[in-house]
Amino acid sequence: MSPEDRLDERRTWTAALLVIGDEILSGRTEDKNIAQVAHWLDTQGVRLREVRVVPDDQAAIVSAVNWLRPNHDYLFTTGGIGPTHDDITIESIAAAFDVPVIIHPEARRILEEYYRDRPQGLTEARLRMARVPSGAELIPNQASGAPGVKMGNVYILAGVPNIARTMLEALDGALEGGQPMASVTIRAFAAESDVADLLKAVQDAHPGTQIGSYPFYRSGMFGADFVVRSDEGAKADAAAAALRERLAEAGVSTGEAD
Amino acid sequence: MSPEDRLDERRTWTAALLVIGDEILSGRTEDKNIAQVAHWLDTQGVRLREVRVVPDDQAAIVSAVNWLRPNHDYLFTTGGIGPTHDDITIESIAAAFDVPVIIHPEARRILEEYYRDRPQGLTEARLRMARVPSGAELIPNQASGAPGVKMGNVYILAGVPNIARTMLEALDGALEGGQPMASVTIRAFAAESDVADLLKAVQDAHPGTQIGSYPFYRSGMFGADFVVRSDEGAKADAAAAALRERLAEAGVSTGEAD
Repeated sequence: MSPEDRLDERRTWTAALLVIGDEILSGRTEDKNIAQVAHWLDTQGVRLREVRVVPDDQAAIVSAVNWLRPNHDYLFTTGGIGPTHDDITIESIAAAFDVPVIIHPEARRILEEYYRDRPQGLTEARLRMARVPSGAELIPNQASGAPGVKMGNVYILAGVPNIARTMLEALDGALEGGQPMASVTIRAFAAESDVADLLKAVQDAHPGTQIGSYPFYRSGMFGADFVVRSDEGAKADAAAAALRERLAEAGVSTGEAD
Repeated sequence: MSPEDRLDERRTWTAALLVIGDEILSGRTEDKNIAQVAHWLDTQGVRLREVRVVPDDQAAIVSAVNWLRPNHDYLFTTGGIGPTHDDITIESIAAAFDVPVIIHPEARRILEEYYRDRPQGLTEARLRMARVPSGAELIPNQASGAPGVKMGNVYILAGVPNIARTMLEALDGALEGGQPMASVTIRAFAAESDVADLLKAVQDAHPGTQIGSYPFYRSGMFGADFVVRSDEGAKADAAAAALRERLAEAGVSTGEAD
Protein backbone atom coordinates (compact mmCIF):
# COMPACT_ATOMS: atom_id res chain seq x y z
CA MET A 1 0.00 0.00 0.00
CA SER A 2 1.46 3.34 -1.00
CA PRO A 3 1.50 6.31 1.42
CA GLU A 4 -1.12 7.97 -0.79
CA ASP A 5 -3.46 5.00 -0.41
CA ARG A 6 -3.07 5.12 3.35
CA LEU A 7 -3.86 8.81 3.32
CA ASP A 8 -6.93 8.15 1.19
CA GLU A 9 -8.16 5.47 3.56
CA ARG A 10 -8.35 8.07 6.34
CA ARG A 11 -10.05 10.62 4.19
CA THR A 12 -13.60 11.59 5.23
CA TRP A 13 -16.09 11.42 2.38
CA THR A 14 -18.94 13.90 2.62
CA ALA A 15 -22.28 14.48 0.97
CA ALA A 16 -25.04 17.06 0.89
CA LEU A 17 -28.73 16.49 0.25
CA LEU A 18 -31.03 18.86 -1.61
CA VAL A 19 -34.73 18.22 -1.02
CA ILE A 20 -36.76 19.84 -3.81
CA GLY A 21 -40.46 20.54 -3.40
CA ASP A 22 -43.09 23.13 -2.51
CA GLU A 23 -44.99 20.41 -0.62
CA ILE A 24 -42.24 20.15 2.01
CA LEU A 25 -42.03 23.93 2.52
CA SER A 26 -45.82 24.29 2.77
CA GLY A 27 -45.96 21.59 5.43
CA ARG A 28 -48.30 19.48 3.28
CA THR A 29 -45.84 16.59 3.16
CA GLU A 30 -43.57 15.50 5.99
CA ASP A 31 -40.13 14.73 4.60
CA LYS A 32 -39.01 11.11 4.97
CA ASN A 33 -35.96 11.28 2.73
CA ILE A 34 -33.50 13.14 4.96
CA ALA A 35 -33.39 10.30 7.51
CA GLN A 36 -33.26 7.51 4.92
CA VAL A 37 -30.56 9.16 2.80
CA ALA A 38 -28.56 9.91 5.99
CA HIS A 39 -28.78 6.30 7.15
CA TRP A 40 -27.89 4.90 3.75
CA LEU A 41 -24.92 7.26 3.31
CA ASP A 42 -23.57 6.19 6.68
CA THR A 43 -23.64 2.54 5.58
CA GLN A 44 -21.62 3.59 2.53
CA GLY A 45 -18.97 5.31 4.67
CA VAL A 46 -20.06 8.82 3.64
CA ARG A 47 -21.01 11.60 6.08
CA LEU A 48 -24.08 13.71 5.37
CA ARG A 49 -22.90 17.21 6.28
CA GLU A 50 -25.66 19.51 5.09
CA VAL A 51 -29.26 19.44 3.89
CA ARG A 52 -31.19 22.14 2.08
CA VAL A 53 -34.87 22.25 1.18
CA VAL A 54 -35.84 24.53 -1.71
CA PRO A 55 -39.08 25.16 -3.63
CA ASP A 56 -39.90 24.06 -7.19
CA ASP A 57 -38.07 27.11 -8.51
CA GLN A 58 -35.28 26.84 -11.06
CA ALA A 59 -33.17 29.72 -9.75
CA ALA A 60 -33.31 28.32 -6.21
CA ILE A 61 -32.37 24.81 -7.40
CA VAL A 62 -29.50 25.99 -9.63
CA SER A 63 -28.06 28.17 -6.89
CA ALA A 64 -28.18 25.38 -4.29
CA VAL A 65 -26.77 22.75 -6.68
CA ASN A 66 -23.87 24.93 -7.72
CA TRP A 67 -23.06 25.80 -4.12
CA LEU A 68 -23.26 22.25 -2.81
CA ARG A 69 -21.72 20.08 -5.52
CA PRO A 70 -18.19 21.52 -5.43
CA ASN A 71 -18.19 21.54 -1.62
CA HIS A 72 -18.89 17.83 -1.14
CA ASP A 73 -17.87 14.53 -2.71
CA TYR A 74 -21.50 13.80 -3.50
CA LEU A 75 -24.76 15.70 -3.80
CA PHE A 76 -28.05 13.84 -3.62
CA THR A 77 -31.35 15.40 -4.63
CA THR A 78 -34.89 14.14 -4.02
CA GLY A 79 -38.08 15.25 -5.73
CA GLY A 80 -39.23 16.88 -8.94
CA ILE A 81 -38.53 14.12 -11.50
CA GLY A 82 -42.12 13.12 -12.34
CA PRO A 83 -44.16 13.78 -15.50
CA THR A 84 -45.97 17.01 -14.53
CA HIS A 85 -45.20 20.68 -15.16
CA ASP A 86 -44.06 21.23 -11.56
CA ASP A 87 -41.31 18.61 -11.97
CA ILE A 88 -38.39 20.83 -12.96
CA THR A 89 -35.41 19.13 -11.34
CA ILE A 90 -33.91 17.77 -14.58
CA GLU A 91 -33.92 21.06 -16.49
CA SER A 92 -32.68 22.89 -13.40
CA ILE A 93 -29.71 20.57 -12.94
CA ALA A 94 -28.95 20.74 -16.68
CA ALA A 95 -28.94 24.53 -16.27
CA ALA A 96 -26.63 24.23 -13.26
CA PHE A 97 -24.18 22.22 -15.42
CA ASP A 98 -24.85 24.44 -18.44
CA VAL A 99 -25.70 21.49 -20.69
CA PRO A 100 -28.85 20.77 -22.74
CA VAL A 101 -31.60 18.36 -21.72
CA ILE A 102 -31.80 15.25 -23.92
CA ILE A 103 -33.98 12.13 -24.08
CA HIS A 104 -31.84 9.27 -22.76
CA PRO A 105 -32.29 6.33 -25.19
CA GLU A 106 -32.16 3.65 -22.47
CA ALA A 107 -34.64 5.58 -20.28
CA ARG A 108 -36.96 5.85 -23.28
CA ARG A 109 -36.72 2.11 -23.82
CA ILE A 110 -37.47 1.42 -20.12
CA LEU A 111 -40.54 3.69 -20.24
CA GLU A 112 -41.77 2.19 -23.56
CA GLU A 113 -41.63 -1.22 -21.92
CA TYR A 114 -43.24 0.02 -18.68
CA TYR A 115 -46.17 1.75 -20.42
CA ARG A 116 -46.58 -0.80 -23.28
CA ASP A 117 -49.74 -2.37 -21.86
CA ARG A 118 -51.21 0.74 -20.26
CA PRO A 119 -53.80 3.01 -21.86
CA GLN A 120 -52.25 5.66 -24.14
CA GLY A 121 -48.79 4.04 -23.93
CA LEU A 122 -45.75 6.33 -23.78
CA THR A 123 -47.35 9.79 -24.01
CA GLU A 124 -45.39 13.02 -24.32
CA ALA A 125 -45.92 13.71 -20.62
CA ARG A 126 -44.56 10.29 -19.68
CA LEU A 127 -41.61 10.75 -22.02
CA ARG A 128 -40.62 13.74 -19.84
CA MET A 129 -39.36 11.11 -17.39
CA ALA A 130 -36.74 9.99 -19.96
CA ARG A 131 -35.15 13.45 -20.02
CA VAL A 132 -31.67 13.84 -18.53
CA PRO A 133 -28.95 16.50 -18.59
CA SER A 134 -26.68 15.67 -21.54
CA GLY A 135 -23.88 13.40 -20.31
CA ALA A 136 -25.87 11.81 -17.48
CA GLU A 137 -26.22 8.13 -16.56
CA LEU A 138 -29.28 6.31 -15.21
CA ILE A 139 -29.97 4.99 -11.72
CA PRO A 140 -32.22 1.89 -11.79
CA ASN A 141 -35.70 2.13 -10.28
CA GLN A 142 -37.15 -1.23 -9.23
CA ALA A 143 -40.34 0.31 -7.80
CA SER A 144 -41.77 2.08 -10.85
CA GLY A 145 -40.66 2.79 -14.41
CA ALA A 146 -38.84 6.11 -14.41
CA PRO A 147 -35.14 5.85 -13.54
CA GLY A 148 -33.08 8.16 -11.37
CA VAL A 149 -30.21 10.11 -12.90
CA LYS A 150 -26.51 10.54 -12.08
CA MET A 151 -24.90 13.70 -13.45
CA GLY A 152 -21.28 14.19 -12.41
CA ASN A 153 -21.29 13.86 -8.63
CA VAL A 154 -25.03 14.65 -8.42
CA TYR A 155 -27.44 11.76 -7.75
CA ILE A 156 -31.00 12.70 -8.69
CA LEU A 157 -33.59 10.56 -6.87
CA ALA A 158 -37.39 10.45 -6.80
CA GLY A 159 -39.25 12.26 -4.04
CA VAL A 160 -41.62 9.39 -3.20
CA PRO A 161 -39.74 7.74 -0.31
CA ASN A 162 -40.13 4.09 -1.32
CA ILE A 163 -38.97 4.86 -4.88
CA ALA A 164 -36.02 6.85 -3.53
CA ARG A 165 -35.19 3.84 -1.35
CA THR A 166 -34.96 1.43 -4.29
CA MET A 167 -32.70 3.90 -6.10
CA LEU A 168 -30.40 4.02 -3.05
CA GLU A 169 -30.40 0.21 -2.94
CA ALA A 170 -29.36 0.18 -6.60
CA LEU A 171 -26.39 2.38 -5.63
CA ASP A 172 -25.21 0.11 -2.77
CA GLY A 173 -21.44 -0.15 -2.99
CA ALA A 174 -21.22 2.16 -6.01
CA LEU A 175 -19.82 5.17 -4.13
CA GLU A 176 -16.25 5.55 -3.03
CA GLY A 177 -16.37 6.00 0.71
CA GLY A 178 -14.57 5.32 3.98
CA GLN A 179 -15.71 3.52 7.08
CA PRO A 180 -19.22 3.90 8.52
CA MET A 181 -19.21 6.11 11.61
CA ALA A 182 -18.81 3.99 14.75
CA SER A 183 -21.58 4.72 17.22
CA VAL A 184 -22.44 3.46 20.71
CA THR A 185 -25.68 4.53 22.39
CA ILE A 186 -26.11 4.48 26.17
CA ARG A 187 -29.57 5.07 27.58
CA ALA A 188 -29.39 6.83 30.94
CA PHE A 189 -32.27 7.23 33.35
CA ALA A 190 -31.41 10.73 34.51
CA ALA A 191 -32.14 14.26 33.34
CA GLU A 192 -29.33 15.29 30.99
CA SER A 193 -28.80 18.44 33.05
CA ASP A 194 -27.80 16.23 36.01
CA VAL A 195 -24.87 14.72 34.14
CA ALA A 196 -23.89 17.48 31.72
CA ASP A 197 -20.48 18.09 33.37
CA LEU A 198 -19.62 14.42 33.39
CA LEU A 199 -20.50 14.06 29.68
CA LYS A 200 -18.26 16.95 28.74
CA ALA A 201 -15.40 15.59 30.89
CA VAL A 202 -15.58 12.19 29.16
CA GLN A 203 -15.65 13.76 25.70
CA ASP A 204 -12.72 16.06 26.54
CA ALA A 205 -10.72 13.05 27.81
CA HIS A 206 -11.33 11.14 24.55
CA PRO A 207 -10.11 13.13 21.54
CA GLY A 208 -11.63 12.04 18.24
CA THR A 209 -15.00 11.24 19.81
CA GLN A 210 -18.20 13.22 20.01
CA ILE A 211 -20.92 12.62 22.56
CA GLY A 212 -24.44 13.73 21.67
CA SER A 213 -27.15 13.98 24.33
CA TYR A 214 -30.78 13.38 23.28
CA PRO A 215 -33.23 13.81 26.15
CA PHE A 216 -36.56 12.03 26.42
CA TYR A 217 -39.45 11.96 28.84
CA ARG A 218 -41.31 8.66 28.83
CA SER A 219 -43.66 6.85 31.22
CA GLY A 220 -43.11 9.60 33.76
CA MET A 221 -39.31 9.30 33.69
CA PHE A 222 -36.66 11.73 32.52
CA GLY A 223 -33.90 10.13 30.54
CA ALA A 224 -31.42 10.71 27.76
CA ASP A 225 -29.70 8.70 25.07
CA PHE A 226 -25.99 9.49 24.97
CA VAL A 227 -24.58 8.70 21.55
CA VAL A 228 -20.80 8.30 21.36
CA ARG A 229 -19.51 8.65 17.79
CA SER A 230 -16.07 8.33 16.26
CA ASP A 231 -14.43 7.55 12.95
CA GLU A 232 -12.65 4.74 14.83
CA GLY A 233 -14.57 1.96 16.57
CA ALA A 234 -11.94 1.49 19.30
CA LYS A 235 -12.18 5.18 20.30
CA ALA A 236 -15.98 5.08 20.47
CA ASP A 237 -15.84 1.90 22.58
CA ALA A 238 -13.27 3.36 25.00
CA ALA A 239 -15.24 6.58 25.47
CA ALA A 240 -18.48 4.63 25.93
CA ALA A 241 -16.85 2.41 28.57
CA ALA A 242 -15.56 5.47 30.42
CA LEU A 243 -18.97 7.12 30.23
CA ARG A 244 -20.73 4.03 31.62
CA GLU A 245 -18.24 3.96 34.50
CA ARG A 246 -18.70 7.65 35.32
CA LEU A 247 -22.50 7.32 35.16
CA ALA A 248 -22.39 4.30 37.51
CA GLU A 249 -20.19 6.27 39.96
CA ALA A 250 -22.79 9.05 39.85
CA GLY A 251 -25.53 6.55 40.71
CA VAL A 252 -27.24 6.81 37.32
CA SER A 253 -28.68 3.57 35.97
CA THR A 254 -28.12 2.85 32.29
CA GLY A 255 -29.45 0.45 29.70
CA GLU A 256 -29.52 -0.22 25.99
CA ALA A 257 -31.40 2.11 23.66
CA ASP A 258 -34.31 0.76 21.59
CA MET B 1 -55.94 53.25 4.45
CA SER B 2 -52.93 54.94 2.88
CA PRO B 3 -51.44 53.71 -0.41
CA GLU B 4 -48.44 52.49 1.56
CA ASP B 5 -50.63 50.35 3.79
CA ARG B 6 -52.29 48.85 0.75
CA LEU B 7 -48.90 48.06 -0.72
CA ASP B 8 -47.81 46.48 2.55
CA GLU B 9 -50.90 44.31 2.66
CA ARG B 10 -49.83 42.70 -0.61
CA ARG B 11 -46.28 42.20 0.49
CA THR B 12 -45.18 38.57 0.83
CA TRP B 13 -43.52 37.82 4.14
CA THR B 14 -40.92 35.08 4.04
CA ALA B 15 -39.03 32.94 6.51
CA ALA B 16 -36.22 30.41 6.56
CA LEU B 17 -35.72 27.56 9.00
CA LEU B 18 -32.36 26.32 10.25
CA VAL B 19 -32.46 22.85 11.82
CA ILE B 20 -29.40 22.35 14.02
CA GLY B 21 -28.26 18.90 15.06
CA ASP B 22 -25.91 16.01 14.33
CA GLU B 23 -28.76 13.61 15.12
CA ILE B 24 -30.73 14.72 12.05
CA LEU B 25 -27.72 14.41 9.72
CA SER B 26 -26.77 10.97 11.08
CA GLY B 27 -30.31 9.72 10.49
CA ARG B 28 -30.72 8.87 14.19
CA THR B 29 -33.66 11.25 14.58
CA GLU B 30 -36.32 11.90 11.97
CA ASP B 31 -37.04 15.62 11.82
CA LYS B 32 -40.55 16.64 12.82
CA ASN B 33 -39.97 20.39 13.01
CA ILE B 34 -39.84 21.31 9.31
CA ALA B 35 -43.49 20.35 8.76
CA GLN B 36 -44.77 21.90 11.99
CA VAL B 37 -42.89 25.18 11.52
CA ALA B 38 -44.07 25.31 7.88
CA HIS B 39 -47.71 24.78 8.90
CA TRP B 40 -47.54 27.32 11.69
CA LEU B 41 -45.85 29.96 9.51
CA ASP B 42 -48.59 29.54 6.94
CA THR B 43 -51.26 30.25 9.57
CA GLN B 44 -49.33 33.45 10.40
CA GLY B 45 -49.32 34.58 6.75
CA VAL B 46 -45.60 33.92 6.30
CA ARG B 47 -44.11 31.71 3.55
CA LEU B 48 -41.36 29.27 4.44
CA ARG B 49 -38.95 29.63 1.51
CA GLU B 50 -35.89 27.66 2.52
CA VAL B 51 -34.70 25.12 5.08
CA ARG B 52 -31.16 24.15 5.98
CA VAL B 53 -29.95 21.40 8.26
CA VAL B 54 -26.46 21.85 9.74
CA PRO B 55 -24.42 19.90 12.33
CA ASP B 56 -23.59 21.02 15.89
CA ASP B 57 -20.69 23.05 14.55
CA GLN B 58 -20.30 26.74 15.31
CA ALA B 59 -18.79 27.75 11.95
CA ALA B 60 -21.61 25.99 10.07
CA ILE B 61 -24.29 27.61 12.24
CA VAL B 62 -22.80 31.11 12.02
CA SER B 63 -22.43 30.89 8.27
CA ALA B 64 -26.02 29.69 7.75
CA VAL B 65 -27.51 32.26 10.17
CA ASN B 66 -25.69 35.15 8.56
CA TRP B 67 -26.72 34.03 5.11
CA LEU B 68 -30.37 33.43 5.95
CA ARG B 69 -31.32 36.25 8.33
CA PRO B 70 -30.79 39.19 5.95
CA ASN B 71 -32.52 37.31 3.11
CA HIS B 72 -35.82 36.70 4.90
CA ASP B 73 -38.17 38.55 7.22
CA TYR B 74 -37.72 35.85 9.81
CA LEU B 75 -35.30 33.06 10.59
CA PHE B 76 -36.37 30.21 12.86
CA THR B 77 -33.92 27.74 14.35
CA THR B 78 -34.61 24.45 16.12
CA GLY B 79 -32.25 22.45 18.31
CA GLY B 80 -29.15 22.92 20.42
CA ILE B 81 -30.51 24.97 23.35
CA GLY B 82 -30.33 22.33 26.09
CA PRO B 83 -27.90 22.05 29.04
CA THR B 84 -25.19 19.81 27.59
CA HIS B 85 -21.85 20.53 25.89
CA ASP B 86 -23.25 19.72 22.43
CA ASP B 87 -25.87 22.49 22.76
CA ILE B 88 -24.06 25.36 21.07
CA THR B 89 -26.84 27.27 19.34
CA ILE B 90 -26.84 30.25 21.74
CA GLU B 91 -23.11 30.97 21.54
CA SER B 92 -23.16 30.41 17.79
CA ILE B 93 -25.96 32.92 17.23
CA ALA B 94 -24.26 35.40 19.58
CA ALA B 95 -21.15 34.97 17.42
CA ALA B 96 -23.24 35.52 14.28
CA PHE B 97 -24.47 38.82 15.75
CA ASP B 98 -21.02 39.59 17.21
CA VAL B 99 -22.40 40.15 20.72
CA PRO B 100 -21.48 38.48 24.02
CA VAL B 101 -23.52 35.74 25.70
CA ILE B 102 -25.16 36.85 28.95
CA ILE B 103 -27.38 35.23 31.59
CA HIS B 104 -30.89 36.63 31.05
CA PRO B 105 -32.25 37.62 34.49
CA GLU B 106 -35.84 36.56 33.73
CA ALA B 107 -34.68 33.21 32.28
CA ARG B 108 -32.63 32.66 35.44
CA ARG B 109 -35.71 33.38 37.57
CA ILE B 110 -37.83 30.94 35.51
CA LEU B 111 -35.22 28.19 35.87
CA GLU B 112 -34.76 28.84 39.63
CA GLU B 113 -38.50 28.39 40.03
CA TYR B 114 -38.60 25.32 37.76
CA TYR B 115 -35.74 23.52 39.54
CA ARG B 116 -36.57 24.72 43.08
CA ASP B 117 -37.96 21.39 44.26
CA ARG B 118 -35.71 19.13 42.21
CA PRO B 119 -32.51 17.50 43.45
CA GLN B 120 -29.48 19.80 43.13
CA GLY B 121 -31.65 22.81 42.19
CA LEU B 122 -30.29 25.22 39.57
CA THR B 123 -26.89 23.71 38.78
CA GLU B 124 -24.32 25.36 36.55
CA ALA B 125 -25.30 23.04 33.68
CA ARG B 126 -28.97 24.00 34.04
CA LEU B 127 -28.05 27.68 34.22
CA ARG B 128 -26.64 27.27 30.68
CA MET B 129 -30.29 27.33 29.57
CA ALA B 130 -30.60 30.94 30.84
CA ARG B 131 -27.88 32.13 28.46
CA VAL B 132 -28.88 34.39 25.58
CA PRO B 133 -27.07 36.60 23.09
CA SER B 134 -26.88 40.09 24.64
CA GLY B 135 -29.96 42.07 23.58
CA ALA B 136 -32.26 39.05 23.15
CA GLU B 137 -35.79 38.53 24.45
CA LEU B 138 -37.39 35.33 25.73
CA ILE B 139 -40.01 33.10 24.10
CA PRO B 140 -42.23 31.38 26.69
CA ASN B 141 -42.04 27.60 27.04
CA GLN B 142 -45.15 26.03 28.58
CA ALA B 143 -43.85 22.47 28.20
CA SER B 144 -40.65 22.62 30.27
CA GLY B 145 -38.62 25.27 32.05
CA ALA B 146 -36.10 26.64 29.59
CA PRO B 147 -37.42 29.45 27.38
CA GLY B 148 -36.82 30.02 23.68
CA VAL B 149 -34.97 33.12 22.55
CA LYS B 150 -35.69 35.91 20.06
CA MET B 151 -32.62 37.78 18.79
CA GLY B 152 -33.37 40.38 16.14
CA ASN B 153 -35.39 38.53 13.49
CA VAL B 154 -34.07 35.14 14.64
CA TYR B 155 -36.41 32.91 16.67
CA ILE B 156 -34.49 30.22 18.52
CA LEU B 157 -36.66 27.21 19.40
CA ALA B 158 -36.07 23.89 21.13
CA GLY B 159 -35.38 20.79 19.04
CA VAL B 160 -37.82 18.51 20.91
CA PRO B 161 -40.94 18.82 18.73
CA ASN B 162 -43.56 19.22 21.46
CA ILE B 163 -41.49 21.91 23.18
CA ALA B 164 -40.94 23.69 19.85
CA ARG B 165 -44.71 23.54 19.36
CA THR B 166 -45.52 25.34 22.60
CA MET B 167 -42.98 28.04 21.70
CA LEU B 168 -44.71 28.52 18.33
CA GLU B 169 -48.07 28.71 20.11
CA ALA B 170 -46.63 31.41 22.38
CA LEU B 171 -45.73 33.38 19.22
CA ASP B 172 -49.24 33.15 17.68
CA GLY B 173 -50.11 36.55 16.26
CA ALA B 174 -46.76 38.08 17.27
CA LEU B 175 -45.27 38.17 13.76
CA GLU B 176 -46.14 40.73 11.12
CA GLY B 177 -47.44 38.75 8.18
CA GLY B 178 -49.84 38.74 5.27
CA GLN B 179 -52.60 36.33 4.36
CA PRO B 180 -52.25 32.57 4.69
CA MET B 181 -51.73 30.92 1.31
CA ALA B 182 -55.08 29.86 -0.17
CA SER B 183 -55.04 26.19 -1.10
CA VAL B 184 -57.56 23.81 -2.67
CA THR B 185 -56.79 20.10 -2.97
CA ILE B 186 -58.46 17.88 -5.56
CA ARG B 187 -57.94 14.14 -5.32
CA ALA B 188 -57.99 12.54 -8.75
CA PHE B 189 -58.16 8.83 -9.43
CA ALA B 190 -55.83 8.79 -12.40
CA ALA B 191 -52.08 8.49 -12.91
CA GLU B 192 -50.66 12.01 -12.97
CA SER B 193 -48.96 11.26 -16.27
CA ASP B 194 -52.43 10.82 -17.84
CA VAL B 195 -53.44 14.38 -17.06
CA ALA B 196 -50.13 16.24 -17.06
CA ASP B 197 -50.99 18.35 -20.13
CA LEU B 198 -54.37 19.34 -18.75
CA LEU B 199 -52.82 20.42 -15.41
CA LYS B 200 -50.32 22.63 -17.15
CA ALA B 201 -53.01 24.15 -19.38
CA VAL B 202 -55.16 25.07 -16.36
CA GLN B 203 -52.20 26.62 -14.52
CA ASP B 204 -51.15 28.59 -17.61
CA ALA B 205 -54.72 29.91 -17.99
CA HIS B 206 -54.76 31.10 -14.36
CA PRO B 207 -51.90 33.50 -13.67
CA GLY B 208 -51.06 33.87 -9.96
CA THR B 209 -51.82 30.22 -9.23
CA GLN B 210 -49.58 27.21 -8.87
CA ILE B 211 -50.73 23.63 -9.23
CA GLY B 212 -48.69 20.93 -7.51
CA SER B 213 -49.16 17.26 -8.36
CA TYR B 214 -48.52 14.65 -5.64
CA PRO B 215 -49.00 11.09 -6.85
CA PHE B 216 -50.02 8.19 -4.66
CA TYR B 217 -50.66 4.48 -5.09
CA ARG B 218 -53.14 3.10 -2.59
CA SER B 219 -55.37 0.02 -2.42
CA GLY B 220 -54.23 -0.95 -5.91
CA MET B 221 -55.18 2.41 -7.45
CA PHE B 222 -53.05 5.10 -9.00
CA GLY B 223 -54.06 8.60 -8.01
CA ALA B 224 -52.75 12.08 -7.37
CA ASP B 225 -53.61 15.03 -5.18
CA PHE B 226 -53.59 18.24 -7.17
CA VAL B 227 -52.98 21.20 -4.89
CA VAL B 228 -53.96 24.60 -6.28
CA ARG B 229 -52.29 27.45 -4.39
CA SER B 230 -52.53 31.20 -4.67
CA ASP B 231 -52.02 34.32 -2.56
CA GLU B 232 -55.65 35.11 -3.40
CA GLY B 233 -58.49 32.78 -2.45
CA ALA B 234 -60.63 33.74 -5.46
CA LYS B 235 -57.86 32.82 -7.89
CA ALA B 236 -57.28 29.44 -6.24
CA ASP B 237 -61.04 28.74 -6.33
CA ALA B 238 -61.35 29.69 -10.01
CA ALA B 239 -58.41 27.54 -11.05
CA ALA B 240 -59.68 24.63 -8.95
CA ALA B 241 -63.14 24.89 -10.57
CA ALA B 242 -61.55 24.91 -14.03
CA LEU B 243 -59.39 21.92 -13.13
CA ARG B 244 -62.38 19.92 -11.85
CA GLU B 245 -64.22 20.67 -15.10
CA ARG B 246 -61.30 19.63 -17.30
CA LEU B 247 -60.79 16.44 -15.28
CA ALA B 248 -64.50 15.58 -15.61
CA GLU B 249 -64.31 16.16 -19.39
CA ALA B 250 -61.36 13.77 -19.49
CA GLY B 251 -63.41 11.13 -17.66
CA VAL B 252 -61.32 11.29 -14.47
CA SER B 253 -63.24 10.90 -11.21
CA THR B 254 -62.28 13.24 -8.39
CA GLY B 255 -62.95 13.52 -4.68
CA GLU B 256 -61.82 15.31 -1.57
CA ALA B 257 -58.38 14.66 -0.12
CA ASP B 258 -58.06 13.25 3.43
